Amino acid sequence: MGTGLLGGSIGHALRAAGYEGTRTGIGRRTATLEKAVACEAVDETTCSIEEGVADADLVILCTPIGSFETLLPKIRDNLKPGAYITDVASTKAEVVHLAEQTLTESVYFVGSHPMAGSEKTGVEYARADLFENALCIITPTNRTDKDAVQWISDFWQSIGGYTLVMPPRQHDELLARVSHLPHAVATALVHLAMKNSAIDLAGPGFGDCTRIASGDPDMWTDIFTSNQKATISAVDLLIKELTHFRDRLDREDAEAIRAWLAEGKENRDEWLARRYENKVLFE
Amino acid sequence: MGTGLLGGSIGHALRAAGYEGTRTGIGRRTATLEKAVACEAVDETTCSIEEGVADADLVILCTPIGSFETLLPKIRDNLKPGAYITDVASTKAEVVHLAEQTLTESVYFVGSHPMAGSEKTGVEYARADLFENALCIITPTNRTDKDAVQWISDFWQSIGGYTLVMPPRQHDELLARVSHLPHAVATALVHLAMKNSAIDLAGPGFGDCTRIASGDPDMWTDIFTSNQKATISAVDLLIKELTHFRDRLDREDAEAIRAWLAEGKENRDEWLARRYENKVLFE
Repeated sequence: MGTGLLGGSIGHALRAAGYEGTRTGIGRRTATLEKAVACEAVDETTCSIEEGVADADLVILCTPIGSFETLLPKIRDNLKPGAYITDVASTKAEVVHLAEQTLTESVYFVGSHPMAGSEKTGVEYARADLFENALCIITPTNRTDKDAVQWISDFWQSIGGYTLVMPPRQHDELLARVSHLPHAVATALVHLAMKNSAIDLAGPGFGDCTRIASGDPDMWTDIFTSNQKATISAVDLLIKELTHFRDRLDREDAEAIRAWLAEGKENRDEWLARRYENKVLFE
Repeated sequence: MGTGLLGGSIGHALRAAGYEGTRTGIGRRTATLEKAVACEAVDETTCSIEEGVADADLVILCTPIGSFETLLPKIRDNLKPGAYITDVASTKAEVVHLAEQTLTESVYFVGSHPMAGSEKTGVEYARADLFENALCIITPTNRTDKDAVQWISDFWQSIGGYTLVMPPRQHDELLARVSHLPHAVATALVHLAMKNSAIDLAGPGFGDCTRIASGDPDMWTDIFTSNQKATISAVDLLIKELTHFRDRLDREDAEAIRAWLAEGKENRDEWLARRYENKVLFE
């Protein structure tokens, strides 16, 4: 349910992978659902959540994190026994906890975070290869059925992703540092660049490092508020790191700055090489 | 002098623009000079700075900022009266001050900062269109000859750039925020991402916003130390901005976070649209 960039791309990817069953798009806005049918991301649509999920073998929540609190109670009593439920939310601890509190034990919920997407939103950008070589993190708890974890892993692999399993809280802590913090920093850099129109002198480097600041403000508000503690810790760590850099510069310690820059470059270049090796290519 | 990415690209661009005079590459390492001749970035080369600049109408310093202190005294007494001297350094106040202190009044020095380049270095990446639609900032002081400012502006325009004139100190303050600070932040983000191997979960967004951290550590050490005060001020401003964000998140003020993100997105999107309008395209 939810037929935006991710929901739509899952639809395309399922068909491309040979799935021949019915792909149902569930949403609130008829215009969005019509677009999803028109581009063949889904086969049929409905505005009724209850009807939409009733016959589903797999329900994938592709809606904003903020909507889960009202959505989950609505689907709870309409799910088929034995149905698999997952989601694509960028933060996991809060979402998984809510799902486990709300859904009954007759269905299998397993949290997922496919790391794919872009700062663009909407089914018009959806494509079958969005999950090709994308890392999909699966976040079971000690309450999650082991076979269901395998089933959901197989699902993401069937549409091109590779999977990694870790607890929801660990996911949130790591992602705070490599995804949520960078987003906040990119936004902060744009705000700073507005003073005295410094932004008019900005070049491609600034463009790259602030690209994520063009992401959807609503989605990112949800991400930050649903991963509050880990994001705050990450911001504090960054302030500490920047303060170290500032102090080295203040005492004109060029060698310490050079070493810090060289280590950063080396670590980033190695990471990039690993990604290319694993064929996890950038867009 | 200096036949790396920038020096080499100026050589290519001059030929492409129809310049038929001699392009002389001056450098310390024979192998580098040979590469520059082999790819036709320059016509002739020399390891002798004194001989290299003796007949030049225009000398362009494309060497690291840290080398200016030894280079400028070496060329001082060998320059042709009436010669134009400029540079491509990324910081200007210190460099321009040094040049004005060192060079005689029989030559015309005008500081420049062509905002082109990449995290890649070396003449093998040099290309004739590197300055196409690149912003070239010209930084005269009250001691700079007005006609020389025009001459140097015409030069950059002749190889495709568009020019903007401002005092060295203003250049350094603005660039600290849109270029030097982002570089320090990108490096800091990489360092943070190394803890607990968080970097293994990093995606394209992290890749984009840390791309500049793969830049040359020596060059960036020079940039930071030669623009110490403005960089420290920029770091302090960022820490303040991030602290505001952190505090809003701490008191769960979702509306303030949403407004901050939305304003950042709007400002960045408008900036990007202006760049496209002005045909200042990203690589």
